[in-house]
Amino acid sequence: MPHDFDAAIRLSPLGGHRFGGATHPAYANMVGPYGGVTAAALLNAALQHPERLGDPISLTVNFAAPLADGGFEIEARPARTNRSTQHWLLQLTQAGGIAATGTAVFAQRRETWSAPEAVMPADVPAAATLARAPVEGRPGWTQRYDMRFAPGETPVFDGRERPHSLSRLWVRDEPPRPLDFASLASLCDCFFPRIFIRRSAPALIGTVTLTSFFHADAALLAAQGDRHLLGSARALNFRHGYFDQSAEVWSDAGQLLASTHQLVYYRE
Amino acid sequence: MPHDFDAAIRLSPLGGHRFGGATHPAYANMVGPYGGVTAAALLNAALQHPERLGDPISLTVNFAAPLADGGFEIEARPARTNRSTQHWLLQLTQAGGIAATGTAVFAQRRETWSAPEAVMPADVPAAATLARAPVEGRPGWTQRYDMRFAPGETPVFDGRERPHSLSRLWVRDEPPRPLDFASLASLCDCFFPRIFIRRSAPALIGTVTLTSFFHADAALLAAQGDRHLLGSARALNFRHGYFDQSAEVWSDAGQLLASTHQLVYYRE
Repeated sequence: MPHDFDAAIRLSPLGGHRFGGATHPAYANMVGPYGGVTAAALLNAALQHPERLGDPISLTVNFAAPLADGGFEIEARPARTNRSTQHWLLQLTQAGGIAATGTAVFAQRRETWSAPEAVMPADVPAAATLARAPVEGRPGWTQRYDMRFAPGETPVFDGRERPHSLSRLWVRDEPPRPLDFASLASLCDCFFPRIFIRRSAPALIGTVTLTSFFHADAALLAAQGDRHLLGSARALNFRHGYFDQSAEVWSDAGQLLASTHQLVYYRE
Repeated sequence: MPHDFDAAIRLSPLGGHRFGGATHPAYANMVGPYGGVTAAALLNAALQHPERLGDPISLTVNFAAPLADGGFEIEARPARTNRSTQHWLLQLTQAGGIAATGTAVFAQRRETWSAPEAVMPADVPAAATLARAPVEGRPGWTQRYDMRFAPGETPVFDGRERPHSLSRLWVRDEPPRPLDFASLASLCDCFFPRIFIRRSAPALIGTVTLTSFFHADAALLAAQGDRHLLGSARALNFRHGYFDQSAEVWSDAGQLLASTHQLVYYRE
């Protein structure tokens, strides 16, 4: 039996640059599928494209329209292939309409001078010492992740506005699955909308655009295996119907694997 | 006489979704034009497109190939127009090859509950009390900005590796020009590559992808006029040929106008 995640991002080549896929009930959100899996399916089209060069270093997905449950088509077209980088145009259509657009950059990395700058939060206890956040009554996709929030940072819907929206958690696929670029791309969207944290209340929201940078190469992802990753998310500003949120995703050895930035629509 | 910036992003409608433009010597970089002006030209195609809805809230530009000095063609195609949002596909071609791809989201904003979260750095002295950074011998585009670095944060190329790459500066167009979305999009790329700061040395670099979120509406930009903006930039990680950098751009009244994230190629 494949992991539900692999079933959810599975694509069939349709010829040329086209691939067919379908939403998967295991990753259902309030309306339509979880956006992270849609982003991963778009990336997967480039990952399995015969002209692929190297590994992903960035991915932008724009959610143009709600996705209905059912089949969809993805076009992944290499716009430009250079010596060590490759630029992709991505598009997801459903019933003839564009539901998502995107771009990705792939690269062959080389050994260079390297240096971390950001440092993994040191004050979050090990995943094994924390309890998994309850998922009862939550959308299906949240049940596909094992989330363990830092003490005191589990989202609480008590309606008390908080001074900031920072929260940190350990997270991995549930059931466990070895990390790869597709699952990392999906996980980059797993952070609860920051307005939920800031206002301690749910709200009608929708991610408009999501950009993720992959700092890790395939070897670093393979070294992580299926263990918990540490995520840290926050917002800069909530204004006139849109807020941003940014997050870092760390290996349990303290390496930055991805940083991710999204702009989110909200309605009161 | 129009401002050089307006001349540099000027586009002629070529019919359909196509526009013609040309690089401008005033915004020359080491090789080809300054990427910020290329990003602004791509945004400008959507801004002046007859089907435009609302104002930009996000822009992603992928730099697929070096741009040569001379003419180029931009295609700006509305991929999906919803009730209050509009998704754009952007592409810049030169001599028949794709040099840049991109996407933008426009929106009609509404009054909602709003709240800042990040706060403007309070320890940077007012622009009027700081000296403009010298631009002699620097690429042309740097002379098109008035940059005033926070005390002790002017980039110094003494070859001493520093522990972090954070730097803050006041910046505006030179000569002054009232702020709008195009000039803000361009300014989002004005931050020196963080590897220059971290290693206190120049390096061969190239921005691969640039995503900017616009937190301000047109009224907030108009209120800023042509006064200096405060920028704050840093990196998270330098690894195997690529680093990220993020920056915030603040009005002098302390409002967050834009946040911007890019991934940059580097070679030693």
